[in-house]
Amino acid sequence: MISTLTLEQLMEMEQRQRAHLINSIGGFKSLALIGSIDRQGQTNLAIFSSIVHIGSNPPLLSFIMRPDSVERHTLANIFDTGFYTINHINAQIYEQAHQTAARYPKIISEFDATRLTPQFKDEFVAPFVKESSIQIGMEFKERLNISINQTIMIIGEVKAIHFPSDCLLPDGFMNIEKAGTITIAGLDSYHSTQPLQRLPYAKP
Amino acid sequence: MISTLTLEQLMEMEQRQRAHLINSIGGFKSLALIGSIDRQGQTNLAIFSSIVHIGSNPPLLSFIMRPDSVERHTLANIFDTGFYTINHINAQIYEQAHQTAARYPKIISEFDATRLTPQFKDEFVAPFVKESSIQIGMEFKERLNISINQTIMIIGEVKAIHFPSDCLLPDGFMNIEKAGTITIAGLDSYHSTQPLQRLPYAKP
Repeated sequence: MISTLTLEQLMEMEQRQRAHLINSIGGFKSLALIGSIDRQGQTNLAIFSSIVHIGSNPPLLSFIMRPDSVERHTLANIFDTGFYTINHINAQIYEQAHQTAARYPKIISEFDATRLTPQFKDEFVAPFVKESSIQIGMEFKERLNISINQTIMIIGEVKAIHFPSDCLLPDGFMNIEKAGTITIAGLDSYHSTQPLQRLPYAKP
Repeated sequence: MISTLTLEQLMEMEQRQRAHLINSIGGFKSLALIGSIDRQGQTNLAIFSSIVHIGSNPPLLSFIMRPDSVERHTLANIFDTGFYTINHINAQIYEQAHQTAARYPKIISEFDATRLTPQFKDEFVAPFVKESSIQIGMEFKERLNISINQTIMIIGEVKAIHFPSDCLLPDGFMNIEKAGTITIAGLDSYHSTQPLQRLPYAKP
């Protein structure tokens, strides 16, 4: 049986219930830990499910944040240093990754609180997550303010990608499933994947 | 073994190869067909992998498009009527959904070309995809121009959600895996999912 919920009915829902619903109806989401650091060397780690491809030439990825959320330390650090990391989440670390969403005070690093390991590579200022199989070093490039609800879109350029050698295919495709990357539905439902098929470039 | 690709190496890659790589490193992506119509009644259907949750109060979803792409008919139609639909993709229709990315002339509707069925509901002007188990009616709200590479972010408000009754949980979570929704990695790699776990709200 098919049900319908209208905007009026959505707005009558309890706030947390509506948040679960609207967060889940956009489909399966990208899932990553964003690592950052302030100029005093205090690290921060936060889980995001809004990574989106913006362009490949130059290579650009975006994510969305609310300024009033726990993610605000990430934002402050990115503006402080200009750099951050995007780290894939696998089945071995998703419970720790989820826990980074708790509201820790700024003096506590989520790396310590969740027992994930900060890893510094090649003089890149921001910390990677050692337990992540795919790690991306990012440089901040553009901030867009979304006026309708005061959220912020952050766009960065890919400076380096660290990955398991056997996951990169000759045509450039990174086999993220082979690397163990998982996905999320809604706010808290974690899922692994299985392959259906790669399809050829579509022509009329 | 871990490999590294730097920005300089990425920029030396062949363009299509770099597109495969950068499209796949952001993680698994949301996957949906966006349905639209112009004032003359010509329908359009296009596949997107950039749906992102912007807010729940009011309920807002965004997607990204390049103005020079096949998606331009979608953009023109949204500005023409102010409305569009987001339709989930399942294992039964992903090959047809993928084919909507081909560059058909405007006079050919991708509904006809791919044998997906336009469905009109409750006087909503834009067509839904009958074969999609979760269908969302959207009203255009805000356009953001991304200056760094001239892509466009479109934000819309959820006007109605049509879904299988047994997929909505009491806490508001929509079980999109039960509804058959699939995900995509990169430009062309389709994946089904299996559940790991739902986790409780994170507290310090």
